[in-house]
Amino acid sequence: MVSPELSQFQTSPMAKHGGRSKASSFLADGFLFLAGGTMVALFVVWALWSGLNPPSPSPSPGLSTTVDEAKTTIPSAKQDCATGAHAHGVNMRDDPPDPTFYDDPKLSYAIEQQPIIKNWDEKRREWLKHHPSFAAGARDRIVVITGSQPSPCKNPIGDHLLLRFFKNKVDYCRIHGYDIFYNNVLLQPKMHTYWAKIPVVRAAMVAHPEAEWIWWVDSDAAFTDMEFKLPLERYKDHNFVVHGWPHLIYQKKSWTGLNAGVFLIRNCQWSLDFMEVWASMGPQTPNYDRWGETLRSTFKDKAFPESDDQTGLAYLILKEDKWADKIYMEGEYYFEGYWLEIVGTLDNITEKYAGIERGVRILRRRHGEKVSESYSALREQYLKEAGYGRYSWRRPFITHFTGCQPCSGDHNRMYSGDTCWNGMQRALNFADNQVLRNYGFVHSDPLDSSTVTPLPFDFPA
Amino acid sequence: MVSPELSQFQTSPMAKHGGRSKASSFLADGFLFLAGGTMVALFVVWALWSGLNPPSPSPSPGLSTTVDEAKTTIPSAKQDCATGAHAHGVNMRDDPPDPTFYDDPKLSYAIEQQPIIKNWDEKRREWLKHHPSFAAGARDRIVVITGSQPSPCKNPIGDHLLLRFFKNKVDYCRIHGYDIFYNNVLLQPKMHTYWAKIPVVRAAMVAHPEAEWIWWVDSDAAFTDMEFKLPLERYKDHNFVVHGWPHLIYQKKSWTGLNAGVFLIRNCQWSLDFMEVWASMGPQTPNYDRWGETLRSTFKDKAFPESDDQTGLAYLILKEDKWADKIYMEGEYYFEGYWLEIVGTLDNITEKYAGIERGVRILRRRHGEKVSESYSALREQYLKEAGYGRYSWRRPFITHFTGCQPCSGDHNRMYSGDTCWNGMQRALNFADNQVLRNYGFVHSDPLDSSTVTPLPFDFPA
Repeated sequence: MVSPELSQFQTSPMAKHGGRSKASSFLADGFLFLAGGTMVALFVVWALWSGLNPPSPSPSPGLSTTVDEAKTTIPSAKQDCATGAHAHGVNMRDDPPDPTFYDDPKLSYAIEQQPIIKNWDEKRREWLKHHPSFAAGARDRIVVITGSQPSPCKNPIGDHLLLRFFKNKVDYCRIHGYDIFYNNVLLQPKMHTYWAKIPVVRAAMVAHPEAEWIWWVDSDAAFTDMEFKLPLERYKDHNFVVHGWPHLIYQKKSWTGLNAGVFLIRNCQWSLDFMEVWASMGPQTPNYDRWGETLRSTFKDKAFPESDDQTGLAYLILKEDKWADKIYMEGEYYFEGYWLEIVGTLDNITEKYAGIERGVRILRRRHGEKVSESYSALREQYLKEAGYGRYSWRRPFITHFTGCQPCSGDHNRMYSGDTCWNGMQRALNFADNQVLRNYGFVHSDPLDSSTVTPLPFDFPA
Repeated sequence: MVSPELSQFQTSPMAKHGGRSKASSFLADGFLFLAGGTMVALFVVWALWSGLNPPSPSPSPGLSTTVDEAKTTIPSAKQDCATGAHAHGVNMRDDPPDPTFYDDPKLSYAIEQQPIIKNWDEKRREWLKHHPSFAAGARDRIVVITGSQPSPCKNPIGDHLLLRFFKNKVDYCRIHGYDIFYNNVLLQPKMHTYWAKIPVVRAAMVAHPEAEWIWWVDSDAAFTDMEFKLPLERYKDHNFVVHGWPHLIYQKKSWTGLNAGVFLIRNCQWSLDFMEVWASMGPQTPNYDRWGETLRSTFKDKAFPESDDQTGLAYLILKEDKWADKIYMEGEYYFEGYWLEIVGTLDNITEKYAGIERGVRILRRRHGEKVSESYSALREQYLKEAGYGRYSWRRPFITHFTGCQPCSGDHNRMYSGDTCWNGMQRALNFADNQVLRNYGFVHSDPLDSSTVTPLPFDFPA
């Protein structure tokens, strides 16, 4: 019917060219062991008080402790978190005639289009003033963006996997009340593969002035803890959050010192400016080849000559305080985690959680899917010992199939395609079991995506 | 990596076995011509007043005019529609300890599991009482359910198409604030293909007591009017809505007198009872073969011997007032429409809408995606002449690729696979252009899914 085209829209470049640095993961996830029992107890109290977000034993030793600049956060008319309410009551039927930035003929949704947007923070604030129902709660509002290439995948099961990964994200967003947008076009035709996300995120900022954050999540990443929520409070002085380890960038000058496949970016002027600079290293510019050389000479372990978004990001962090100061390198929990270190731990985690539930009746209580967040908050106190990230038995937040390339099928030669495929099945079914439970069913075999059985009342007592 | 299994999860049975009755579509969509100018004007006033929903020129001449039984609608604590507000402010973090139906050990999410749920309306009402933030707005709350088979499609581009169809539904749901759930497991292993949706809808009712309606939409159906909303007020005395034409069922005894691939079902006791009866004609029962014979002898044009959900539904309408009285056969607008009569009209519709916009500045105004509904309401007054359904130039609400079988690829021999594939591209890009516009882009060529260009300010002036 149609011949599959070449993959135009891949995920993180690391995927194609190498595995992860074991050292990075080890160090990254080791932070949790630094926290003493008292600290943990304190944070558990905080977590219960704040309603949901799992606690952070200690601030990241990255950039966050060194900066204290003026926040670019748009002040929201009313903050609803303190009441424990997840209010997203908004009036979608009203757009008052008062002029906003949308009425400016020079406004562009496209990246690199002149003139570049200025005073965005003020413009967003103005828009929110005219849309008070959106202003309430704006501070924590997140829109998730993901996507893949416009054409069918070369890998025969590629699109099936993309479909399941997308379903997984939609599940997560439904449970937490987030909007999600799937993009499958190239908004800037020359910004292919891992560059494609920048123009999409840029357009989404203009399309969603009601959202404080845009959260890019690669198509090959799955939410494997359906309960965990981003600890936004931790990022209040930053505009960009990425999984990363400062010493690997600053000392080791490694291009795998961060992973650009998942990032959270604040909808603010800083971010618009940052994305222009970031995008200027891309294949649509005359400087693309020169950027490739610069990046490779700076990050000696970079595996291929072309300029890529991930090394570009690392470069900007390394070279310019203006950017680095507002970028939070999250190294504590699995902001995104390498699947190869995760999938083998999932069965044990399932058993650990079941063990807790056998002892705590309230965690076995059936409930409406829409009030799941209240049970996540209750569970938190029993996860004190779990830790975060590597060597922990907490459900990993996001499992990223870096190196598997589900769409093209050109996976890293370190492992077989079956290893990838089985890993994805395991992770997706692990996540799906958390969702299906609220519909009364379970995959008894984590490798059997097809078969489910009804869950008995009071499971797993 | 894995060998694709046989398709277990197909869409409407008609798809496999025959095209649509041309007569049905003709008659179905002819109703709009019955409405006089005065009626139309009246309904336009109503539409503007009510904020959004396109008006209905006349009630369906089906069953709706003959019944007036007690409503099973759960009374909501507060109705927010009259204010024009689309409030979906809910507290997702609170599940009070008061016992609800979830605490009943005998409650089952599975269909046909004894004991069958009783007093569901009261139980839901009770749950809503304990969750007042969900009670507000409950009367109009919709959860969309769709899904496909657990395994990769046999058709090489099948999963790619499913991915795009799913993206399309997520877009529609984001614009209108609906939750959506994608199911890709068989909750009742023997209820395969077109029977699979019944157990899913059943489980979703129990999982979503906050929702008044569950809306099943087949995987091969696309929203092609991103603005149109279900005229729920019209269905207030009914519990089940399906695209159908009473005379084709009652007089002609045709199994194509309705299409079971898209239906809206009220989350109430009647629906639970109805689904038990409907499901009892399925392949999991000892009576499956006998039902096949009964259905075929009643609906002589039925093309294959097995009992199927669609003919089963038609049979229940024909034979039992208890069910028929609460089923609304929507024949006026494209509750779902046959793609072959739709795709050829899309270019003209695009031109008609652009023509209106060239004359009406406010319709060209850029705006946040989340307030799109306010522009749909404004557009309505310019669509007076458009009509609904066949021969109209209103955007068709849902385009259903009946007979194309995107996943298996076993399309009806009436047309080539390319006809199906091109039709899907056209329909999906037609829909995508309505979405992308709020992100500043457009597919200039409706057959080119990959390429988009930035939209100039004030387009299409």
